[in-house]
Amino acid sequence: MGYKQVIVLRRDIEMGRGKAAAQAAHASVEAVLKALRSSRRAWNEWLERWLEEGQEKVVLRAESEGELLRIFEEASRAELPASLVRDAGKTQLQPGTLTAVAVGPAPEEVIDKITGHLKLY
Amino acid sequence: MGYKQVIVLRRDIEMGRGKAAAQAAHASVEAVLKALRSSRRAWNEWLERWLEEGQEKVVLRAESEGELLRIFEEASRAELPASLVRDAGKTQLQPGTLTAVAVGPAPEEVIDKITGHLKLY
Repeated sequence: MGYKQVIVLRRDIEMGRGKAAAQAAHASVEAVLKALRSSRRAWNEWLERWLEEGQEKVVLRAESEGELLRIFEEASRAELPASLVRDAGKTQLQPGTLTAVAVGPAPEEVIDKITGHLKLY
Repeated sequence: MGYKQVIVLRRDIEMGRGKAAAQAAHASVEAVLKALRSSRRAWNEWLERWLEEGQEKVVLRAESEGELLRIFEEASRAELPASLVRDAGKTQLQPGTLTAVAVGPAPEEVIDKITGHLKLY
């Protein structure tokens, strides 16, 4: 069984590639810290295994704010570590714009149930 | 005094925007974990302040592998938390290609001495 983290970025808003990379990193770090600081044993274990295996990350796209939010809500309901990034809006975007979600680290097949239908970013 | 993390990505190699975002996230997480797990009090403090301030991340470009490596070495010599990402090469790139560096979280003016001359990615 492999572990991964999926990072979902919106493609329906204008983000330069540097901005997109920063939002992805933000989402990724938030989800990792959630897993690390959680009292859920499963989350701590998934994190350690994922780090040992080399931190697989896959970047996928959402086509709307609604789709991004649904991914985050489904991941939360499925009790997976997940983060939702809201941009401060100092550059490029309106303040409060939702830009990115990270799901995992978690077992691949569990994440795929939630994000398996999304295209590569 | 503000804190930030700088993520440096190579622009001289072909990376799709999803790939670039994944490499940025990888570098960012590695540097954060280094700071978190370090016994250096300063690194732990910089990390906490940076998280409290909202995790500012800036994505900059390097024009060659040599430039990327120099940034990493200078950051290490300056005793800043830093990570260097070597791609596994399963997609797009040759195995072992250096793709990204993260420097910080650390005080802005300390990081700027090392990366202040780089352009936005």
